[in-house]
Amino acid sequence: MFVTWDGERQRARPLAATVDREEGVLYFLTDINGHKDEQIARFPTVTVAFADHGHSRYVTLTGKATMSNDRARIKQLWSPFAKAWWDGPEDPAIRVIQVVPDDAELWDSPGRIVTTISMLAAAVTGRAPKFGENAKVIM
Amino acid sequence: MFVTWDGERQRARPLAATVDREEGVLYFLTDINGHKDEQIARFPTVTVAFADHGHSRYVTLTGKATMSNDRARIKQLWSPFAKAWWDGPEDPAIRVIQVVPDDAELWDSPGRIVTTISMLAAAVTGRAPKFGENAKVIM
Repeated sequence: MFVTWDGERQRARPLAATVDREEGVLYFLTDINGHKDEQIARFPTVTVAFADHGHSRYVTLTGKATMSNDRARIKQLWSPFAKAWWDGPEDPAIRVIQVVPDDAELWDSPGRIVTTISMLAAAVTGRAPKFGENAKVIM
Repeated sequence: MFVTWDGERQRARPLAATVDREEGVLYFLTDINGHKDEQIARFPTVTVAFADHGHSRYVTLTGKATMSNDRARIKQLWSPFAKAWWDGPEDPAIRVIQVVPDDAELWDSPGRIVTTISMLAAAVTGRAPKFGENAKVIM
């Protein structure tokens, strides 16, 4: 779930995430037709929540989101999965959202928090937080 | 995922929901030790997101949350599941959150919205929205 704030309330919607472990960021393909762009422009702090119900594992990431029309990145992120919404990576309505996480929280069951990770602390100390190593999760 | 706003950013955590179809509200057992009470007091509009990954169904509900120390309700909502966090329903740290939904959104795959339900419209017209009939979801 990709959660934004519109000034009055949260807006949440399911979005498929691509994690770039090298860069330490998340990418999402999205459509220009929607309100995410205004919400991100006004309130760039977003939350991304992942749940693996089968293993009762939950992760939330909070960070700064930016939306762009980076066509090279859109092409790189394109997958057969995206064909459900657009004909191809050249579709001019596609945008890419990048989220740079500030921190993350991990639960191993509802209500029981396991770990809070500060990405900022990790960046300052040079120890990169390793996505996907603490818990494998699907959106 | 139960999502609140703290004035600067979203706060999301997994919480087990109980849906009361008669009342048309959701209940959550929670602990007094946390920040949810302050967040709800300042910003009562919360979002609850459910995901059924196996069937690619997603529901978000947005509405007004209130937290109370209604011991009769806490006892009623008590389940063996809750024993992971408290010894019994008499634990003085337990609180109950009630969410009265204003509207809901339903997706049958990430990014593809199926239905937007206005609970207010349903209330005005006397046609109660029927939870759990459009899609069976787990948190």
